Amino acid sequence: MMDQIARLDAFLERTAGERLADYVDFLRIPSIGTLSEHRQDMIGAARFVADHLERWGLEHVEVSNTDGHPVVYADWLHAEGAPTVLVYGHYDVQPVDPLDLWVRPPFEPRVEDGRIFARGAADDKGQVHIHLWAARAWLETEGRLPINVRYVFEGEEESGSPHFDAWLGANRHRLAADVAVISDTGFFEGNLPAITVGLRGLMYAQIDVVGPTVDLHSGTWGGNVQNPAIALARIITALKREDGSVAVPGFHDEVRPITERGHDEFARLPLDEAELAAQIGVPELFGEADFLALERRGARPTLDVNGIWGGFEGEGSKTIIPAHAHAKVSCRLVADMDPMRTFERVRDAVLAVHVPGVRVDVQLLSHGMGTQTSIDHPATVAAAHSLREVFGEDPYYLYEGGSIPAAASFSTLLGLPVVLLGFTNPDDRAHAPNENMVLANYEGGIRTIVRYWAALHDLPR
Amino acid sequence: MMDQIARLDAFLERTAGERLADYVDFLRIPSIGTLSEHRQDMIGAARFVADHLERWGLEHVEVSNTDGHPVVYADWLHAEGAPTVLVYGHYDVQPVDPLDLWVRPPFEPRVEDGRIFARGAADDKGQVHIHLWAARAWLETEGRLPINVRYVFEGEEESGSPHFDAWLGANRHRLAADVAVISDTGFFEGNLPAITVGLRGLMYAQIDVVGPTVDLHSGTWGGNVQNPAIALARIITALKREDGSVAVPGFHDEVRPITERGHDEFARLPLDEAELAAQIGVPELFGEADFLALERRGARPTLDVNGIWGGFEGEGSKTIIPAHAHAKVSCRLVADMDPMRTFERVRDAVLAVHVPGVRVDVQLLSHGMGTQTSIDHPATVAAAHSLREVFGEDPYYLYEGGSIPAAASFSTLLGLPVVLLGFTNPDDRAHAPNENMVLANYEGGIRTIVRYWAALHDLPR
Repeated sequence: MMDQIARLDAFLERTAGERLADYVDFLRIPSIGTLSEHRQDMIGAARFVADHLERWGLEHVEVSNTDGHPVVYADWLHAEGAPTVLVYGHYDVQPVDPLDLWVRPPFEPRVEDGRIFARGAADDKGQVHIHLWAARAWLETEGRLPINVRYVFEGEEESGSPHFDAWLGANRHRLAADVAVISDTGFFEGNLPAITVGLRGLMYAQIDVVGPTVDLHSGTWGGNVQNPAIALARIITALKREDGSVAVPGFHDEVRPITERGHDEFARLPLDEAELAAQIGVPELFGEADFLALERRGARPTLDVNGIWGGFEGEGSKTIIPAHAHAKVSCRLVADMDPMRTFERVRDAVLAVHVPGVRVDVQLLSHGMGTQTSIDHPATVAAAHSLREVFGEDPYYLYEGGSIPAAASFSTLLGLPVVLLGFTNPDDRAHAPNENMVLANYEGGIRTIVRYWAALHDLPR
Repeated sequence: MMDQIARLDAFLERTAGERLADYVDFLRIPSIGTLSEHRQDMIGAARFVADHLERWGLEHVEVSNTDGHPVVYADWLHAEGAPTVLVYGHYDVQPVDPLDLWVRPPFEPRVEDGRIFARGAADDKGQVHIHLWAARAWLETEGRLPINVRYVFEGEEESGSPHFDAWLGANRHRLAADVAVISDTGFFEGNLPAITVGLRGLMYAQIDVVGPTVDLHSGTWGGNVQNPAIALARIITALKREDGSVAVPGFHDEVRPITERGHDEFARLPLDEAELAAQIGVPELFGEADFLALERRGARPTLDVNGIWGGFEGEGSKTIIPAHAHAKVSCRLVADMDPMRTFERVRDAVLAVHVPGVRVDVQLLSHGMGTQTSIDHPATVAAAHSLREVFGEDPYYLYEGGSIPAAASFSTLLGLPVVLLGFTNPDDRAHAPNENMVLANYEGGIRTIVRYWAALHDLPR
């Protein structure tokens, strides 16, 4: 067994240059799933993944159509008597605006100071690439994998995975597994190895406030019409209190209180709030005063405005009353909160704000349940073991603030335990300009997965 | 005298086709003064005006530089013993977004249903053109003007005339006059002839709310940072009450109360509020309940958001916390309100809102005093007489909601009475898509000015 791992490590050592070039090629594809102009790039990225899986010996490789972007499926099922792992990642990436804040164009990867900079370097093409090369290492060095695997790489995670559940339903027959492994999370502050044991859910909506048919002259009409941008501001203000807590009636009804033991565990994690604030360039963190920053990230729901717009945005003065104003508003949900119920509550709160003279509409754009997994599950224990072997220290266990709709789907629809084993550095600037991945995390990630597959061989079934 | 007017009318009748083609040529120039990419077009529009004045016999024609866009000056001073009129208009136009709502591109003029559609058709290139052709009619038909005139056409009115006062100061020596005539206003609802006897002032500012250095992942950071868009919404909401009144402390301190007699005069004007709401496509008008719509337009100050933006505006979902959010906020001011004092009060109110975790900045973009002129002034009486002769009915006297910085400057800096004699139809969509001018107003406007110059010959000095 140690010989085997040594051979796998040697293969990875030998192929490091080729692998980096291949990683760069993958990142060059502008696979922005939310923008329809990138439809062909999405197919290109899916093909990139499928071609690699095929070339490296995976079977039943398929670029499988959905009503949105395709899912890439592949498997290798010859480890008789061993458990089966369902591996998930996504090849779509976030939009790249504001473009002017990128030091280099987002799809022209650049290596600097031990990091690779590009949109998707961390979230999540870098981690998909980790899995591709972990499979290649086993198949090319040993001619086999120690477990059975089914790969499922989707292209709509950044859109809230609107067609993924339908695909899961239609492909149930080839998704039988013992555990799901998702690599779309990362390490703790200070780049400390970590396993994510809780994920928040998501409800994402748009508020549209519509006033006059066209923009009006603010001199002629000012004083006589409801201003859609002011009405929208009033609505948003009604959703959140000055202290940062969510003011939507009933919003917290299903939120589990944090137990004393839970609070102690959060308090044990090393986190310097002032350093965190400095890292993102704000004068201070801001949130519910009765909770720790890590509790606010992992165990408390949120409501944020993701974008707001209406009227004149150019240089100088344009004296109009905007015809309409809009906001994207989303909530992060903790365990037991239902996204649809949350949408209804937010919608009702929006429509309850008294803003005569305009029409207000709220539409749901995407949603997903949160998930929790146990620290004591044998698949989590095996992941911790593999991380320790590669990174030399015990991992931390995190409740993450983000959402991965697939995690909820695997848990709810397929009834699988879900291990969230990801490798990104916490300062990866995911979703923001200059996204990057520390190459040591990337390389260590491949070596961790290589070991994890061996460790899962003995998973009790 | 009647023969003279008949000859002038005959000239105008004969040249109608040529004039419309010339009007179209003027409107084809995209003279958007607020956008630096149109700098050359601004020079083109100024040259268009200057070339016409020169060709038609005006003297001392000059495209006069300022620190912004040039002022076009010209005069004709051979009416010995007659009064001198200072004529003002502006050749710059508002930006054209949202472009997709224009039936035809804004700088490709189109005549339909007796109207000409183009950006600037009404505000204010159409009215500048009225003055060019009124001068031509006199000079070509009679070889002279009945009064002395000085033309001043500027290019920064839509930007709040930031360099106009400096130009006035530097050119005082050639601006001696008895009365200023400004054609940048229009008729009353129902397209009823009107003279504007009051104008509101303007204070235009920008609010910038700056949070993290870059957009943040809303899952990772949600709950721990102040959201700049929510902070901005809270600030805006603090500036105005739910009933539409302005909540800025001290804002109304210098507002003159409306007298009982003043109220009766407003109430006498024919206005159907429901029809007005239908015209602009809103379910109902909205404003201070204790005042008539016309009082809210002419005699009450306002606060409006002209534009708001921050974060993601694209299709679909992008799960970020915006790094920053911005709003353009402006106030219309009534007589006795000082724009600078108003700016300070709004700025103080903005900075008083408690939004920890972000930096808030307020900058003044432009400002101008309001003005009032008397219905009994001989120059107003002469204007009413000329309007009646052309349009066949007594004009209404209006307090307009808009602002013309030059009006305040002529009154304050040059000590001139200001007559606001404009001809646009009230449904002209100024500042909005599909701006237009009723051609009968345009042609009637030229005939009114032609008569007005004759009537002003006898102005007591």
